[in-house]
Amino acid sequence: MSNQMSRDERFLAMAKELGFDIYDENSAGGHYAPLIRHDDELYVSGLVPRMNGKVQYPGRVGLELNLADAQEAAGISAIRGLALIREAIGSLDNVKALLRITVYVKSTFDFVDLSDVANGASDVFTHVLGEAGKHTRTTVGVYQLPKNAPIEVDMIAALYPSAR
Amino acid sequence: MSNQMSRDERFLAMAKELGFDIYDENSAGGHYAPLIRHDDELYVSGLVPRMNGKVQYPGRVGLELNLADAQEAAGISAIRGLALIREAIGSLDNVKALLRITVYVKSTFDFVDLSDVANGASDVFTHVLGEAGKHTRTTVGVYQLPKNAPIEVDMIAALYPSAR
Amino acid sequence: MSNQMSRDERFLAMAKELGFDIYDENSAGGHYAPLIRHDDELYVSGLVPRMNGKVQYPGRVGLELNLADAQEAAGISAIRGLALIREAIGSLDNVKALLRITVYVKSTFDFVDLSDVANGASDVFTHVLGEAGKHTRTTVGVYQLPKNAPIEVDMIAALYPSAR
Repeated sequence: MSNQMSRDERFLAMAKELGFDIYDENSAGGHYAPLIRHDDELYVSGLVPRMNGKVQYPGRVGLELNLADAQEAAGISAIRGLALIREAIGSLDNVKALLRITVYVKSTFDFVDLSDVANGASDVFTHVLGEAGKHTRTTVGVYQLPKNAPIEVDMIAALYPSAR
Repeated sequence: MSNQMSRDERFLAMAKELGFDIYDENSAGGHYAPLIRHDDELYVSGLVPRMNGKVQYPGRVGLELNLADAQEAAGISAIRGLALIREAIGSLDNVKALLRITVYVKSTFDFVDLSDVANGASDVFTHVLGEAGKHTRTTVGVYQLPKNAPIEVDMIAALYPSAR
Repeated sequence: MSNQMSRDERFLAMAKELGFDIYDENSAGGHYAPLIRHDDELYVSGLVPRMNGKVQYPGRVGLELNLADAQEAAGISAIRGLALIREAIGSLDNVKALLRITVYVKSTFDFVDLSDVANGASDVFTHVLGEAGKHTRTTVGVYQLPKNAPIEVDMIAALYPSAR
């Protein structure tokens, strides 16, 4: 009965399912911040599907990666974003909406099923946050990504004014 | 005397000129929202130049598409964005500014006239919205786009506080 | 003693070091605006590393450009952004944070050190703005950029409510 679980419980269950250790270091390198809050908006840096210090499913979608792997990678980027937000504001119950996610897919020249790949991220947000997981989305196929990642996802979240 | 027409009238005239049916389904698929409002900001998902359920001018700019076609495609994405905003807030008179548009152009390896392509979107915004069509812009050439689209445009609009 | 200099003094010193003339025309073409303010947010258009009317280090990173040149180009885009912000709000002391920078790198098929390139922009922001130069960042490798530029950087800055 996933609908009877809280957002944070669904987050923990999804993290476990993806093999994501929420206590793992989730840093963004020394040159920028993983996230910044401004009033009731939270900007999250572009996240590659890194787990346990290593980019998962490295390579190019349509060449070294198939659609199912790319969707899984997108889901890992999404859960990393939720982990960062949860760490910053205490509980995912404080998220009002995801104003924008941008999903960058490192694709081959002629791989056009980019929306299907991005659904791997969208579905994690929707599953964990319910109605608040509603988001606008931009999906593009790029030529390269940092650390040979197949996917990068960035986010802008809106918080309830009461969020700590 | 286009300056004596209202914004909404100019929108309708431009939609007609582009062959865009404003009563056509303008959805964004089931996994995300076409647009989300947060206070007086409106985020619009990345829009490909779809009309009547079909991506117009599919292909790669500089290969299957020339500059004029790409500009027309960019204009269709722009008019779709205006249609979504108008549907959400009732009248384009409620738009204060376009804070950001990002224009993604699926280009060839050596096609560099990306700004000229993006002008096809910018000019629609400026023509319809007048001074409020003023916007910041980022234009990049990408490797692929969803559904083999040549163009994708996303937007963040600022609304007057009084907008419904 | 760079820490005893003001932000604006560090900006002027950095502009000089990069050979950037802050009195040079810093326009964005006639079809869009270089920056737009909305309440206490400032959106800055995508900036290529243009100085004295000419794109610096044109070409593709990993092919015509090496890492060091690409970092320098990213720094020029960053200083252009700071010049625009300073011109708009009078002093960089009014900047509270950089909510988001997106760094687009025109890379080769297999150039993956994109984060290192983006550090060339991040380090300029941090050096000039200190703690307020903290930012979230998205870095992607794209296929083409306007005017054959190697780099494009866009920004969203948060201002203190008191900023003019």
